[in-house]
Amino acid sequence: MKIIDGKSISNQIKSEISAEVAKIIDNNGRAPHLASILVGEDPASQTYVENKAKACKKVGFVSSKYNLSAKDSENDLLETIEFLNNDQNVDGIIVQLPLPEHIDEKKIIQAVKPEKDVDGFHPINAGRMAIGLPAYISATPFGIMQLLQRSEIETKGKNCVVIGRSNIVGRPVSILMSQNADPGNATVTVCHSKTKNLQEISSNADILIVAIGKPELVNADMVKQGAVVIDVGIHRKPSTEKKSGFKLIGDVKFDEVSKKASYITPVPGGVGPMTIASLLINTLKASKKEIYPQTEHN
Amino acid sequence: MKIIDGKSISNQIKSEISAEVAKIIDNNGRAPHLASILVGEDPASQTYVENKAKACKKVGFVSSKYNLSAKDSENDLLETIEFLNNDQNVDGIIVQLPLPEHIDEKKIIQAVKPEKDVDGFHPINAGRMAIGLPAYISATPFGIMQLLQRSEIETKGKNCVVIGRSNIVGRPVSILMSQNADPGNATVTVCHSKTKNLQEISSNADILIVAIGKPELVNADMVKQGAVVIDVGIHRKPSTEKKSGFKLIGDVKFDEVSKKASYITPVPGGVGPMTIASLLINTLKASKKEIYPQTEHN
Repeated sequence: MKIIDGKSISNQIKSEISAEVAKIIDNNGRAPHLASILVGEDPASQTYVENKAKACKKVGFVSSKYNLSAKDSENDLLETIEFLNNDQNVDGIIVQLPLPEHIDEKKIIQAVKPEKDVDGFHPINAGRMAIGLPAYISATPFGIMQLLQRSEIETKGKNCVVIGRSNIVGRPVSILMSQNADPGNATVTVCHSKTKNLQEISSNADILIVAIGKPELVNADMVKQGAVVIDVGIHRKPSTEKKSGFKLIGDVKFDEVSKKASYITPVPGGVGPMTIASLLINTLKASKKEIYPQTEHN
Repeated sequence: MKIIDGKSISNQIKSEISAEVAKIIDNNGRAPHLASILVGEDPASQTYVENKAKACKKVGFVSSKYNLSAKDSENDLLETIEFLNNDQNVDGIIVQLPLPEHIDEKKIIQAVKPEKDVDGFHPINAGRMAIGLPAYISATPFGIMQLLQRSEIETKGKNCVVIGRSNIVGRPVSILMSQNADPGNATVTVCHSKTKNLQEISSNADILIVAIGKPELVNADMVKQGAVVIDVGIHRKPSTEKKSGFKLIGDVKFDEVSKKASYITPVPGGVGPMTIASLLINTLKASKKEIYPQTEHN
């Protein structure tokens, strides 16, 4: 059994990006610029935004932060987005979710210019991905594909089971895994809360991607000997072993499943670290106008 | 075994639409207006456009046709689309495919205003559908969902296998079948040319949707007793029984599979007639601004 080391793969990606940014600057180019918008004071959200800014700094990107108060209106937020949409020195824009209740998340997601939507949340990016056009792919599915590719795991013709059908993980990763691409070309089954025979289906998977958000749902009986297991879940479990009083666990019972798997992602240190790496790749692509060479989506 | 009669279901939909159009006109409203663009003289394409115009007439829609020569430039076509995009009396626009080789199909599809894209081909409509937002769903997948719904076939928790992953049928219908909706909520597996164990997978399906474009690929061994079988294929097979010298067949061996199926669509007369019905539903929705109450996608 091999551990898929997301932290190490993510560092490798960051090194590659750093090298590319250094070249851009050597050629008198402008460093990629990621703008983050945070509404309110939620400590977890603040940490996420902070971590993204740190990662930008590490690879030589410019990053800027826009903090709105939780009391600011939807219109205030839309104006900030519009300002950044029009700023030619800003390549990528992310709006940290969740947003306060008085703000319509769907409306905000659709306000970000698709060319700068490095989170890949705008429906036009979801749609372009679904029909195989170049697109910003959102951080988690993109990170999973990077993990598989960089671990040289064959996906073509394999039975892949995705547990979870969310818009930000299960659905997009199921589409990517089944597309005519490499990685891809797997025979993909999407399972969810209404699936009746989950164990029968999951235990037939060569590649099992679990993104259902239920702590340790997947046990060894649900996994085939030699399967590749990707665990997207992350939960806190009370633990006396840790100073913090809790440890992090995934959607998979790591101890027992790891004995049957050929490859497995740990929690933490598997899919998690890949999300920022994906965001950096997307921001670099945005600065190079790789996805939208012109405003072709109008 | 029950035959799913697409022709009859499609006529039922047309009657419902007629009744709604009559009401709109009684209330001094404007009849829905579908504009079709045909480039070149391909006889099959001419027939399709003609049939759509006839169907419009039957339900009380206004239809208009724009014929460009096969020699007209991509720009000429873009200008026609732009004209129709801006015409407030036009609700839906369809560009008959395929297009001559010198015209970039992807560019044309993206030139149609999403609000008028009643074919559901624009990436923003594909994306909105994929993430569960209201969207124009393209004719064939929408028609399949209508067939299942109007035949009162339970889909929730069922194993659904889709053979084919095309952007216009396999992919969207697989997403619709697995979404948290009714019909929907099935556990969906997408198979394609790289799938290794097709017979094993397909013979486990409660609902089997075949859209792979291979004449009579699916035989009785590939189908479970009591399965619901939806055949999207349509091919000509030489036949001495017919005056025309050929008969129409699907992707499924109807004679043998129909003996095992609980429900099955015939070819012709199954999925085929539903495509125009879907287009009419979409055009009606466009005229009522049901999908895009405002230009919320900007």
